[in-house]
Amino acid sequence: MAAKVGVGLLGLGTVGGGVASILQNPDERHPLVGELELIRVAVRDLNRPRPVALDASLLTTDPSAVIQDPAVDVVVEVIGGLEPARSLILQAIAAGKSVVTANKAVIARHGQEITEAAAAAGVYVLIEAAVGGGIPIIEPLKQSLGGNRINRVSGIINGTTNYILTRMAEEGAAYDAVLKDAQELGYAEADPAADVDGLDAADKIAILATLAFGGSVDRAAVPTEGISGLQGVDVDYANQLGYGVKLLAVAERMAVSGDPLPLSLRVQPTLVPMDHPLAGVNGVNNAILVEGDPIGRVMFYGPGAGAGPTASAVVADILNIAGIRQASDGPGKVDPLLAAGSWRPCALADSGDIRQRHYVRFKTKDAPGVIGNVGGCFGERNVSIQSIVQFNASDAGAEIVVITHEVSQRQMNEALEAIQALPEVSGLAAHLGCL
Amino acid sequence: MAAKVGVGLLGLGTVGGGVASILQNPDERHPLVGELELIRVAVRDLNRPRPVALDASLLTTDPSAVIQDPAVDVVVEVIGGLEPARSLILQAIAAGKSVVTANKAVIARHGQEITEAAAAAGVYVLIEAAVGGGIPIIEPLKQSLGGNRINRVSGIINGTTNYILTRMAEEGAAYDAVLKDAQELGYAEADPAADVDGLDAADKIAILATLAFGGSVDRAAVPTEGISGLQGVDVDYANQLGYGVKLLAVAERMAVSGDPLPLSLRVQPTLVPMDHPLAGVNGVNNAILVEGDPIGRVMFYGPGAGAGPTASAVVADILNIAGIRQASDGPGKVDPLLAAGSWRPCALADSGDIRQRHYVRFKTKDAPGVIGNVGGCFGERNVSIQSIVQFNASDAGAEIVVITHEVSQRQMNEALEAIQALPEVSGLAAHLGCL
Repeated sequence: MAAKVGVGLLGLGTVGGGVASILQNPDERHPLVGELELIRVAVRDLNRPRPVALDASLLTTDPSAVIQDPAVDVVVEVIGGLEPARSLILQAIAAGKSVVTANKAVIARHGQEITEAAAAAGVYVLIEAAVGGGIPIIEPLKQSLGGNRINRVSGIINGTTNYILTRMAEEGAAYDAVLKDAQELGYAEADPAADVDGLDAADKIAILATLAFGGSVDRAAVPTEGISGLQGVDVDYANQLGYGVKLLAVAERMAVSGDPLPLSLRVQPTLVPMDHPLAGVNGVNNAILVEGDPIGRVMFYGPGAGAGPTASAVVADILNIAGIRQASDGPGKVDPLLAAGSWRPCALADSGDIRQRHYVRFKTKDAPGVIGNVGGCFGERNVSIQSIVQFNASDAGAEIVVITHEVSQRQMNEALEAIQALPEVSGLAAHLGCL
Repeated sequence: MAAKVGVGLLGLGTVGGGVASILQNPDERHPLVGELELIRVAVRDLNRPRPVALDASLLTTDPSAVIQDPAVDVVVEVIGGLEPARSLILQAIAAGKSVVTANKAVIARHGQEITEAAAAAGVYVLIEAAVGGGIPIIEPLKQSLGGNRINRVSGIINGTTNYILTRMAEEGAAYDAVLKDAQELGYAEADPAADVDGLDAADKIAILATLAFGGSVDRAAVPTEGISGLQGVDVDYANQLGYGVKLLAVAERMAVSGDPLPLSLRVQPTLVPMDHPLAGVNGVNNAILVEGDPIGRVMFYGPGAGAGPTASAVVADILNIAGIRQASDGPGKVDPLLAAGSWRPCALADSGDIRQRHYVRFKTKDAPGVIGNVGGCFGERNVSIQSIVQFNASDAGAEIVVITHEVSQRQMNEALEAIQALPEVSGLAAHLGCL
């Protein structure tokens, strides 16, 4: 057997503890796990109680001591946040160490800088745990689907919001009440913005897009809408019409080719037909659908968060680095699939060009002919409608729900403007995507 | 960029044609596809019309000429069948070439011989296309889940039978009629035995078990039951009770550890609860569920057959070999994750020890108390029942359907023997598994 592979951990929270626990208990796992040796662990406070029993001599409060330890071959960054995580990753690369990180925020914003530094140093930065928790999605995208022209990657990639949406659908509960519950159960943070505003999902879809299409995009420019404005009535109407509502993240190519390749990325609450593979993804589970040519459509499903699943993904990356070391004579040369550098420029397309189906709900006066007038406005702007249904008609007014066929955002906006100008329409109460 | 990687194809049928087509059209795929060069192709008949246009100088009727060509680095075997496929794979290994194959029959029966030969020669034999068509399942099992103790791998891994079962469920159609249709549509072979008798699924679950548990099992000893004896009435009753019927392949560990590790493998028609992730897998799609610690449960879903998906999987394997070549200085040393040799002995457990839920249907005389007597027989043998329902009662008799909780095969057999001895029971009309 080859020499042991030294692992240095930056952070010993739930994920770091899960990783240490696997490394300390290699039995019944792949035998290569037994070749990994935990060398040093950087923590913030030496005296805090730990989820795993570690020899005190392994602990340090100095992350640099872990990175620079000559016995450490692979640095695992599970601190989270932008800094000092980004600097520590770059420091590890500069020291010639491969890096494994679960840090989607850093990779979504500084992935290009980090990948270029890793390529120059001939080391790997692996990120399986950054998207989809334990679900193998990064490695399959990099190593198993390269023969395809990828056309779209979409999915449910935030467990917190999916938990909230599942309970809203199952119990008819209001958003605020479920969020409060989720916070008490530990499924949502005290400050839930990163999850419920879609920022976490936007980080992740930006990462998936880079791997699927070979170039990075401007993370800050990804149109992102969360679920905090979602009303229970729309979940209810969607169910009645045969759809579930999911916070969907989408990355798709807008053309067969291009330099730069035009992409559409977005995060938005979206109606999903009940017989669609994503509709059955409930609770904190995640699922990612990859569509390509010639493969067609494949889906990856599983636990999107949690110490165990995330640790499984981190250890997978460490194993990949350990495995490839046995095939190579030394550092400096890397497997281009595993290293996954960018290979071409990509750019976000004009959002007006994005084509999809839409769900909209209008509040209207209960005037005769209102359905006809709304339908007419759509027709005049060439927005083809799949269904138009009136709900809750009363003296106070009614609600009209429209599901369109696929149209451009530009056409849709023009139609919505015209409809909101109709005297019998009091307002646009909801506007969601629809698969 | 590194030198081109030479590819030799053995076979140019639908899968081989799909592979050639990807290699000839690298645009918009991973740039490494452009580094693959199709060197030679062995076909049976030089004059047969081909799905792809290939320079006639590439073709030969001599597979050895492909294998021995010094420009060929990777040999792709897509001939199928046991011989000459096995001998050609071994010949390629002996020539120091890595091999990519879609041949589940050869790998399920001769996998150990082939893997050992590959390890001795320091080359890879990759088999992503052998299970699950285009679905990445082999690479994730080998490279992404190694940190886990895998407890169970199960799934729908034969597209033909899933197509037949889907149509039986949706149309209430009889097995024979749907099979005839499937044959006319090209979804089933003229001799459908390999699919409908479960033999193809048994090959595939034997392969998955070897990867998940680290040792091979005796393929011939895998309990295998197909769908040719399945009656429409049981699909119908299962639906009424909230289940779909799927041809499920299962491989699970029977103990936390062991030397050899005891495994249960089986292929059988199985009731799947409607809210189970596998229940929604319809038509020719496949899905594989992997359960492990600490990951929990992940599922891989997609097209289980077809030229495009299978070619995608073959090209993935070629890319992996090409990628790792760039990280290593030469042949001889391999990545143990990718090479995936056995690491311990496994053995099939006594089938009497297999524990699962059961669905059974009895034909009975419509005598008073028959439900009580059947239920009593189960109770006396400690077989705990979840539901017992009478269908189709008439003067001619009735049918009683029982779904048990989890029991050993041994207990179940004893109970069934006792029940069939009851005077009011005319016979056991159906016996399926149940998730």
